[in-house]
Amino acid sequence: MNLLFLGTGAGVPGKLRNVSALALMLLEERNAVWLFDCGEATQHQILHTSLKPRKIEKIFITHLHGDHIFGLPGLLGSRSFQGGTSELIVYGPKGIRQFLEVSLKVSGTHLKYPLTIIEFDDGTIFEDSQFKIEALLLDHAVPSFGFRITENDKQGALDAKKLMEAGIPPSPIYKQLKDGETVTLDDGRTINGRDFVGPPQKGRILAILGDTRPCKNAVELARNADLLVHESTFSGENEEMAREYFHSTTLQAAEIAREANVRMLCLTHISSRYTKEDWKQLEKEAQSIFPETKVVSDFANIAIPSV
Amino acid sequence: MNLLFLGTGAGVPGKLRNVSALALMLLEERNAVWLFDCGEATQHQILHTSLKPRKIEKIFITHLHGDHIFGLPGLLGSRSFQGGTSELIVYGPKGIRQFLEVSLKVSGTHLKYPLTIIEFDDGTIFEDSQFKIEALLLDHAVPSFGFRITENDKQGALDAKKLMEAGIPPSPIYKQLKDGETVTLDDGRTINGRDFVGPPQKGRILAILGDTRPCKNAVELARNADLLVHESTFSGENEEMAREYFHSTTLQAAEIAREANVRMLCLTHISSRYTKEDWKQLEKEAQSIFPETKVVSDFANIAIPSV
Ligand SMILES: [Zn+2]
Ligand SMILES: [Zn+2]
Repeated sequence: MNLLFLGTGAGVPGKLRNVSALALMLLEERNAVWLFDCGEATQHQILHTSLKPRKIEKIFITHLHGDHIFGLPGLLGSRSFQGGTSELIVYGPKGIRQFLEVSLKVSGTHLKYPLTIIEFDDGTIFEDSQFKIEALLLDHAVPSFGFRITENDKQGALDAKKLMEAGIPPSPIYKQLKDGETVTLDDGRTINGRDFVGPPQKGRILAILGDTRPCKNAVELARNADLLVHESTFSGENEEMAREYFHSTTLQAAEIAREANVRMLCLTHISSRYTKEDWKQLEKEAQSIFPETKVVSDFANIAIPSV
Repeated sequence: MNLLFLGTGAGVPGKLRNVSALALMLLEERNAVWLFDCGEATQHQILHTSLKPRKIEKIFITHLHGDHIFGLPGLLGSRSFQGGTSELIVYGPKGIRQFLEVSLKVSGTHLKYPLTIIEFDDGTIFEDSQFKIEALLLDHAVPSFGFRITENDKQGALDAKKLMEAGIPPSPIYKQLKDGETVTLDDGRTINGRDFVGPPQKGRILAILGDTRPCKNAVELARNADLLVHESTFSGENEEMAREYFHSTTLQAAEIAREANVRMLCLTHISSRYTKEDWKQLEKEAQSIFPETKVVSDFANIAIPSV
């Protein structure tokens, strides 16, 4: 599980940062990629990575501002052109359906895979045996959502070496032992599976938020998360401007991370007013409040290890 | 007057060529830029040029395929964000209005300049004292148009040096002479303006065509043009494939140029199946039929001198 930042700029594309897109790479977990937001030229950014558009299984849109959605019609078309045939589900706030349906219809784009569009509101928007995704409304000029992605705990691994040492060779009872059952062997011994199973692996928690002023729901979504991705359009001194434009500063994002007790904070959606030389300073500001902060750039690839 | 090719690829963006866009730079003529088509990431391409989005006065869309329009909403928004306040007129086939209105509305994009959308059909779509633009339907999978841009002839310049030598100093009569009038001077001499005005400068003619199979209207639009911009998605040997996908080959485009008796041919909309090494070969193929052919690349800048 890792996060590949495809666009980390704000509002309009610049030479140094493209507009918003973020790929959650779940190749080991489910041989799939989940995309969060899809600003213009996200498919161009993808050309410079190993990401295969046909592996994109779901796209989550935080809000409908152009710098978060204008790359969608092109990416959907290219995924088809490049041989994608599996279903793609796009989750977005109300309006995403009209935008996509009109864009695809007007342009005569015929997808060779089933496209499902789900307009969501606050609440659980997806859940299967591996993951749960919850959305909550944030505080932006248009409805903007944050996502809390919770991975289920994984069963501990069966310790095959220890079983062999105990003179129990591989057989169908391994499955029962792995499930924690108690089994009586042919030689009369009674074996408790739990003695041969490692500790369960704690599932990871990510919070990926759309554009927002600092707000309670941001803390709620990020509570005890392994990683929080928060916007940080402005530096600490520009709090008034951030408020006016419904954005956050470095310091405000860091305060959210501290209050929510996350393990790590990634700051993105950096205004193009900041030059390459400023980025370290932005990071330092945030680190003064929350040390485990990183200001990410386009193509940053952040691994999210289990604890 | 020069043509700046911003995207010269076909269908989907590649690493070497972006999808379609072409800027007609009319800085000397009217301090303006006219854009022809606007594929995704056209605004990103513009970042690498000296073109100022606020100088874009008109955008002409040949047809509604995604690789020709998906960059429009983002460019329109950025033109506003970057301080554009003058009117922008978008000319496109029926459907362009719905695409733009829905994209701008859903994304909450508020333009700080007046946007006019004109859905056109065959005929003269624009005319002023400098230029006339005519559109004709071509032969593509969806309605695709070509444009003939005719510059009016320019009045010859007044030869001030010759006037001074004849003992006629600058005065308001210069204006009358320039307009070709006959004037009687205070010293009794009668002067014919035409004797002091150079020859009129012939206006230039451009033909910029959308995606198409070879067709009569392509020849019609390009007749005696100074420059023809024609698609050439495939090489000469792929005529069948070109026909199937409603496109043209290098050879077909060159035949149109020869038949129309143009001065120069620029081939664009090159499929990404062709590598950098193939481009020279594509050019040679076309030159075997029409020597004054150039296969253009992204950022090619072609001057169009008066004859
Ligand atoms: Zn926003
Ligand atoms: Zn086309």
